[in-house]
Amino acid sequence: MDILTVLENKKQGRALSREEIDLFVRGAADGSIPDYQLAALLMAIRLQGMDARETADLTLAMANSGDMLVPQVDGVPVDKHSTGGVGDTTTLVLAPLVAACGGKVLKMSGRGLGHTGGTLDKLESIPGMKIALPEEEFVSIVRRVGCAVVSQSAQLAPADKTLYSLRDVTATVDSIPLIVSSILSKKFAAGAKAIVLDVKTGSGALMPTLEASIDLAKAMVDIGAHAGRSIAAVVSGMEEPLGSHVGNALEVKEAIDILAGRSAGPLKKVSLFLGAQMLIASGIADTEEKALDMLNQALDSGAGLRKLKEMITAQRGDCRVCDDVNLLPKAPVIYPVRARESGYLSHVNGTALGLAAQRMGAGRMRKEDVIDPAVGFVMEKRIGDFVQPGDVLCTLHAASEESAKDTEQRILSALSFTKEPAPRARLLYALVTPQGVRELDD
Amino acid sequence: MDILTVLENKKQGRALSREEIDLFVRGAADGSIPDYQLAALLMAIRLQGMDARETADLTLAMANSGDMLVPQVDGVPVDKHSTGGVGDTTTLVLAPLVAACGGKVLKMSGRGLGHTGGTLDKLESIPGMKIALPEEEFVSIVRRVGCAVVSQSAQLAPADKTLYSLRDVTATVDSIPLIVSSILSKKFAAGAKAIVLDVKTGSGALMPTLEASIDLAKAMVDIGAHAGRSIAAVVSGMEEPLGSHVGNALEVKEAIDILAGRSAGPLKKVSLFLGAQMLIASGIADTEEKALDMLNQALDSGAGLRKLKEMITAQRGDCRVCDDVNLLPKAPVIYPVRARESGYLSHVNGTALGLAAQRMGAGRMRKEDVIDPAVGFVMEKRIGDFVQPGDVLCTLHAASEESAKDTEQRILSALSFTKEPAPRARLLYALVTPQGVRELDD
Repeated sequence: MDILTVLENKKQGRALSREEIDLFVRGAADGSIPDYQLAALLMAIRLQGMDARETADLTLAMANSGDMLVPQVDGVPVDKHSTGGVGDTTTLVLAPLVAACGGKVLKMSGRGLGHTGGTLDKLESIPGMKIALPEEEFVSIVRRVGCAVVSQSAQLAPADKTLYSLRDVTATVDSIPLIVSSILSKKFAAGAKAIVLDVKTGSGALMPTLEASIDLAKAMVDIGAHAGRSIAAVVSGMEEPLGSHVGNALEVKEAIDILAGRSAGPLKKVSLFLGAQMLIASGIADTEEKALDMLNQALDSGAGLRKLKEMITAQRGDCRVCDDVNLLPKAPVIYPVRARESGYLSHVNGTALGLAAQRMGAGRMRKEDVIDPAVGFVMEKRIGDFVQPGDVLCTLHAASEESAKDTEQRILSALSFTKEPAPRARLLYALVTPQGVRELDD
Repeated sequence: MDILTVLENKKQGRALSREEIDLFVRGAADGSIPDYQLAALLMAIRLQGMDARETADLTLAMANSGDMLVPQVDGVPVDKHSTGGVGDTTTLVLAPLVAACGGKVLKMSGRGLGHTGGTLDKLESIPGMKIALPEEEFVSIVRRVGCAVVSQSAQLAPADKTLYSLRDVTATVDSIPLIVSSILSKKFAAGAKAIVLDVKTGSGALMPTLEASIDLAKAMVDIGAHAGRSIAAVVSGMEEPLGSHVGNALEVKEAIDILAGRSAGPLKKVSLFLGAQMLIASGIADTEEKALDMLNQALDSGAGLRKLKEMITAQRGDCRVCDDVNLLPKAPVIYPVRARESGYLSHVNGTALGLAAQRMGAGRMRKEDVIDPAVGFVMEKRIGDFVQPGDVLCTLHAASEESAKDTEQRILSALSFTKEPAPRARLLYALVTPQGVRELDD
């Protein structure tokens, strides 16, 4: 058996054996199979597909291509992953809440490019916070506190690194088996036994239609069954930023506000729903109602906020930010973007908003770019809101007047208004578990 | 427009525009597009296909990627190409005959690997013969003699060189648009205005089924219509070697024997049929009957053999071989392979026979291998013949006793016999021209 046989079989639409999958994953990890053969195979997989067994084998082979952590914690190691979205800070809300309920949240994040920084960049806006921690320290924090969020080690799933960078340049990103194996292999390698996924749907999402998003969610849940992991996937909307705050320190502030009981809204709602699935997947709660009760109690009692403080302290950050959000980095220019005409906010171009935040300095365009933790904006209106001329649509936190002016234009052209009332954007679409697909009503 | 757009479009199954095709062919020729992107695109083309317009654009773009010869000859420059086969020496028979009838046969051949040597290797078994000639000399010989067979210049269709070598290692050889464009781009670049193709069908052929072979023939004929070239394709069988002789000098001897009127059989029949199509495609004859009459006359009068002598002399070879085939290289060991039992020869494993010849030294396994022009074998029986124990099945021309013994085993296991009479192998299946597909009866 060699790579040419593997290529021939997938080209003919045949399912690859575990040995065939191991062969090319090993070759991707150690560099012994040239890029052009991997690229041709990725295109064959994109066009001929892979069944659930093949995808599970691919995921496990990629997970096994580097270090495999076996975290010794008292309970089920649980992780959560979102396929992307602007103003999405659920991790910072749910990790402390789940930990306060007894969950063991081990979160390893990648850095990557993006409109706004990832979870790691958000955490780094907290003075002193360390996200590059050795494995033993990471696990020891989870054991002690119940949650930790650190950067992914380079030795995790090295085959994924090779294949991911090839997919980017060969138009093979949009393949369910390749997406699933890329996401889950890193979670498996980091030791997660229970995983809750937040699969975004809508324009700008990884999958363009609700149907495709549900298919992706199902594929991931299926892999759990094949690989002995408890996986649940929530399909949620991304018609507009989930939280109102967009930007690194701003998003940390919003998470603290929610944990302190000062703020509610869609970000809180989705965070609690995802957190409930994590408690169920961890075996801590047996019904959604019980799980939500536990989380609400942790929120109301302040136990969640205390867990966040403990985690920040354990990761050498200044936990006083939890009591005084003014200790977070602050932008010099605060600038209100006002409505020019009256109408209902009907559509938000999320990609354009994300790009605006990136241009302000909140996200990286190239790997070497340095993020400004303080900049970003706070959306003051949501889809369906009525505005009159002069109403503040959005408050900018900019590095300069010039940046504020530029961002104002970008934000105004990202928002659409209608004369007729516009419906609210839908938040939650479906929950996919090994038991099936459940439609969610908002 | 960039290569990622091209990849995306072909992945989605869309037809590529001429500009998109030009872009990737240019990038393949000048090395500006990396192998992994070309490899992914080749797989996308293999799986999503290309229509006739795209294939014509691809062929022309590859032809235009290097030198384009515009041979100044008095008449229509005509070429012939076979998709492969063991003991297939039609070029050496038909080129002189077509030239004797007034045709202008410009044949540029590639070298490549193969069970037995290609046409170039066969010609090089003639003492003194030069096949690497400058373009001007090549054209001047065709002008003077009417035919010449030389090696393809490195500057011809360089994009094909890149893509061909990638196809070999990415399991994308079996794609009609890629096969068609690879074959025809070199013919177009070498200046052929009329082209006759011999598409082999049967086990071991490029296309596994008759239907697929006819599809390939149709695709090539279609490209002629799109590219202003007169193309006809003959679909012929390869159940057993076409000529009885297999090996370089042996095949030259068989061609001379046919031109001298000493030998007949399937090789002669197919050569005349292909030659007739060349005369028609060149506009020299308007019916098949007339074309065959002209060719038979050239054969009977000895004009064909005289043309071969002229061509050999022009290419600095010793034309006395045409009068005395004993001047060709001769193997030291002549060894008869005899039947072990009685029966009808029912099946010949052509691939195994080819491999046997290659092992004897008649073909290359690696580029750097040196061919032994003298070795090979002469099949004394054809499919359908009845043999008795002790009858000679095949006469080996070997370099050593050891090689002869080894080859004997290989040949015996390549032949199957039955007690019941076995039908003869079919030679000609179909003729495909712009007018349509005509079934041929043998």
